[in-house]
Amino acid sequence: MESYMKQQLNHYQEINNEKARLLVSCPDQPGIVAAVSAFLFENGANIIESSQYTTDPEGGRFFLRIEFEAPGIREKIAKMKETFASVAESFQMTWSITLASELKRVVIFVSKELHCLHELLWEWQSGNLMAEIAAVISNHEDGREIVESLNIPFLYLKANKDIRKEVEAQQLKWLEEYRADVIVLARYMQILTPEFVSAHPHKIINIHHSFLPAFVGANPYKRAYERGVKLIGATSHYVTNELDEGPIIEQDIERVDHRDNVEALKNIGRTIERSVLARAVKWHLEDRIIVHGNKTIVFN
Amino acid sequence: MESYMKQQLNHYQEINNEKARLLVSCPDQPGIVAAVSAFLFENGANIIESSQYTTDPEGGRFFLRIEFEAPGIREKIAKMKETFASVAESFQMTWSITLASELKRVVIFVSKELHCLHELLWEWQSGNLMAEIAAVISNHEDGREIVESLNIPFLYLKANKDIRKEVEAQQLKWLEEYRADVIVLARYMQILTPEFVSAHPHKIINIHHSFLPAFVGANPYKRAYERGVKLIGATSHYVTNELDEGPIIEQDIERVDHRDNVEALKNIGRTIERSVLARAVKWHLEDRIIVHGNKTIVFN
Amino acid sequence: MESYMKQQLNHYQEINNEKARLLVSCPDQPGIVAAVSAFLFENGANIIESSQYTTDPEGGRFFLRIEFEAPGIREKIAKMKETFASVAESFQMTWSITLASELKRVVIFVSKELHCLHELLWEWQSGNLMAEIAAVISNHEDGREIVESLNIPFLYLKANKDIRKEVEAQQLKWLEEYRADVIVLARYMQILTPEFVSAHPHKIINIHHSFLPAFVGANPYKRAYERGVKLIGATSHYVTNELDEGPIIEQDIERVDHRDNVEALKNIGRTIERSVLARAVKWHLEDRIIVHGNKTIVFN
Amino acid sequence: MESYMKQQLNHYQEINNEKARLLVSCPDQPGIVAAVSAFLFENGANIIESSQYTTDPEGGRFFLRIEFEAPGIREKIAKMKETFASVAESFQMTWSITLASELKRVVIFVSKELHCLHELLWEWQSGNLMAEIAAVISNHEDGREIVESLNIPFLYLKANKDIRKEVEAQQLKWLEEYRADVIVLARYMQILTPEFVSAHPHKIINIHHSFLPAFVGANPYKRAYERGVKLIGATSHYVTNELDEGPIIEQDIERVDHRDNVEALKNIGRTIERSVLARAVKWHLEDRIIVHGNKTIVFN
Repeated sequence: MESYMKQQLNHYQEINNEKARLLVSCPDQPGIVAAVSAFLFENGANIIESSQYTTDPEGGRFFLRIEFEAPGIREKIAKMKETFASVAESFQMTWSITLASELKRVVIFVSKELHCLHELLWEWQSGNLMAEIAAVISNHEDGREIVESLNIPFLYLKANKDIRKEVEAQQLKWLEEYRADVIVLARYMQILTPEFVSAHPHKIINIHHSFLPAFVGANPYKRAYERGVKLIGATSHYVTNELDEGPIIEQDIERVDHRDNVEALKNIGRTIERSVLARAVKWHLEDRIIVHGNKTIVFN
Repeated sequence: MESYMKQQLNHYQEINNEKARLLVSCPDQPGIVAAVSAFLFENGANIIESSQYTTDPEGGRFFLRIEFEAPGIREKIAKMKETFASVAESFQMTWSITLASELKRVVIFVSKELHCLHELLWEWQSGNLMAEIAAVISNHEDGREIVESLNIPFLYLKANKDIRKEVEAQQLKWLEEYRADVIVLARYMQILTPEFVSAHPHKIINIHHSFLPAFVGANPYKRAYERGVKLIGATSHYVTNELDEGPIIEQDIERVDHRDNVEALKNIGRTIERSVLARAVKWHLEDRIIVHGNKTIVFN
Repeated sequence: MESYMKQQLNHYQEINNEKARLLVSCPDQPGIVAAVSAFLFENGANIIESSQYTTDPEGGRFFLRIEFEAPGIREKIAKMKETFASVAESFQMTWSITLASELKRVVIFVSKELHCLHELLWEWQSGNLMAEIAAVISNHEDGREIVESLNIPFLYLKANKDIRKEVEAQQLKWLEEYRADVIVLARYMQILTPEFVSAHPHKIINIHHSFLPAFVGANPYKRAYERGVKLIGATSHYVTNELDEGPIIEQDIERVDHRDNVEALKNIGRTIERSVLARAVKWHLEDRIIVHGNKTIVFN
Repeated sequence: MESYMKQQLNHYQEINNEKARLLVSCPDQPGIVAAVSAFLFENGANIIESSQYTTDPEGGRFFLRIEFEAPGIREKIAKMKETFASVAESFQMTWSITLASELKRVVIFVSKELHCLHELLWEWQSGNLMAEIAAVISNHEDGREIVESLNIPFLYLKANKDIRKEVEAQQLKWLEEYRADVIVLARYMQILTPEFVSAHPHKIINIHHSFLPAFVGANPYKRAYERGVKLIGATSHYVTNELDEGPIIEQDIERVDHRDNVEALKNIGRTIERSVLARAVKWHLEDRIIVHGNKTIVFN
């Protein structure tokens, strides 16, 4: 199995060996695209995919994502970043250039309900999530078997609100030890402290089991049942310190009717949660998401 | 044009001439279906469509809708109702038998935005809404041309919150004069008083421009934009005295993204509102909806 | 793990202990529902769910599915069947009464692509597929690990068109040995002989990777790409001896665009295939499907 | 009413007064975006929206659509085109620059079924179709009233396959007289001759009432009913001389079930046809579609 995981990672790195992604955010003004594309051309890069968005044609903010291919990018990226810094400065850009072959390290938090974990592992095995799954952290033992069968470390720690501080201290140590780039709350049912959240801005992806902002908070399926809605949904968002108020990445819904009781809603909901979370994580891993205020721009 | 309208109504009545619908709600117990179907059989009725639902197999409430065909139903319906009353009594039923050929009289309330009115008129002309459109009431003149071109009375009355009582007094007079069976608020932007609403329980159908309970209240598209949702929707519900809290009949959504500004959301939303409202009205006209507590059972 | 499987089956049987399902198909005439519901009432049964359909109000064919609960059904079912036979005869019914607690035995055929198998196993573990998974038959070894980890027999046999007869002879022996009630082709890429198919009428469920009748035959994703469609889909159907022409049980689609190459279409398609097949199998297991001519009536 | 139409057109032109669109198709090579964006920058243009696509990163074909704003564009466009010609030549580009304020002239062909015509007129009145509706051509009188009420010329001419040549001769004269830029077949049930089609390559938009390539040809709803599909759909495509084989612009579907007879399918289908055709026409009007081989690239 270890060989399988190694194989998978090698495969990802190989097909992405010469690819990189440039993300830019700056005040809108004429000439940005001209300057950026001239820079890329001069550096021997071929643009594979390019998306842009301006909040407002008049005095708005400009966002750009370019995926490009450049022979020898792994060797020359440091030099390229240095050169780009001066372009960036003249346009007051916030920016990043990342190698597609440098896989992000994901740590998944999970509790007793395993459907989202299962989906992420399955999508990962299918080659749809280009990442290294560094570890799975859980306050229950239920996930251990499937996780360890894939040779991924499974880190168990009992958790509840009375021992939150101590638990988070250990979790933060693990996140550092396993060098987490992104944290996925795959139906981890514990609330995180502001300290924990602030330590990972726009790095914690949660799945909420309603089409937010409907049914913010606990027991959304029960409340959906009581309200008699004809649609149920799920929302993936970045975690902020406002509960269920972070920037929304993706949402989806399914149609339900009067015959569906709370149990049926949960069941239908699980399928939505699985696909919504998997899409959100995929887009994050591919650097397709820019957070702007409390909203996301998703270049998918 | 008058002849067109007459033709349409004649057509509806002709194809439904021998059809009727039985709606039943009662405590669940064995033998209900046996009793009802024996009654129908003895009265020469053939069941065309039958739907039932029990809130809970143990001690729940039972709901039934049967559409049946019986030769000479128009003549013998009074007699049938009399006979059914004793069946109904022994099961503590709330019930109704209605002739499909007795078209409900619809009064549509509209303001300046005409897309929902337009859709209802179009669906009515296409033969999808089996109703008599008795009148259109509006606080703006915008709808007059299209409404009068179909030979439907267009009743104009200025309205705003300062003169609500007087306006409603006139509207209630009109509703009586035009013998309204159902009132459709097709983006009528005025709030109705509790007196008005209480006078028509489960007879007023509204379209709300969000996937309730998200964005209860005013300006849902603006708030949807600000929250950065990835779906927008519309909800059709019966009006109660709790604003936007009445029993939901139908909902739908469309996918949006960061590029859609408030104007675009409104635009996309209009298409959803049109179809959601049209479906809800259609189901009401066909006696497919039973209200139970604050929820609907829709036998569609 | 064995204990898990036993536990699961025990759980299914327990919650369904007093439930049974009656399926009826006969020429339409007045009095059918009255007769059937009187029969159920006299046998102490409470109707939980009832669905009916008539192909044509005038001289059509009538279909009925009733799910009912009756204390002690497991003991008295033989007697009930005997009594019902005379009701059935007077209406020329084709009919069945099945105990919900008698789980159908499923044999899954799979090849190298495991996503559909995976989904079925996952849904089964989640309690959504009330069945006994008797065995998995495959012409590749890829599925062995996951299948055996759930303590389900994995039966490997090399297959190709040159040795079809011999292979099917062995498969038929296995189907008998493992007492298969239903066969699921979960992306089993071999064509079955007419002899094999005829031996299991309306018992073989296939998943086809297109929205049939578009792209009948091989390589649907490649052909979808070449035709430039904006939707791709999947279809689950009963297998007949006309390739891809059997009665359709369920279909679904996803939106795609010009950027999706064949690889991407396959990838998106896999998600559709998973859910479409899982729904079809679930409905079959719950006796919700009646085949009429080359079409299905699905009472879901 | 005339004033309304004038008002509408003036409004379109005003909000688009400084906008233009550049479409490019050429062999892929590094430096294209750099050259194009430098050109735009030097001409004082600000990029509002930009989309690109390459069929294949290795030696593929490159497609680009840029929407830009440039003060005084209406005066300087001729000069800009001249300058761009040399950029274009060095990259072997096929290209166009069009003013958003120069509205395309649409001629709609319609027969007896008016739902698609109705939708186009409604969307046009709502400001979603930025076009001049030059005329409506029909072989039936049914559409006259609604069309003339909007002050649009309604051109009636009896048509059938026996007099096809003569009819088309007159239609071609009308198309010239009304200076048609795009022809929309809004359920016009006549087949066009190869001569007619060849005279307007990628300028004739049709709506086909199935999810092509399923049910190519006549009576798709009847055939969908007979095949027992669980989805029905509609397809908008450019007309070519291969019947129903032209490049697909947009498709959509709705779920149906065994209860829906042919009449019901047609009815559900009409709603899909309306929205699918309206979207396709809108994208064409906004120069969002590039035809490549027998496929479309839709930059929406």
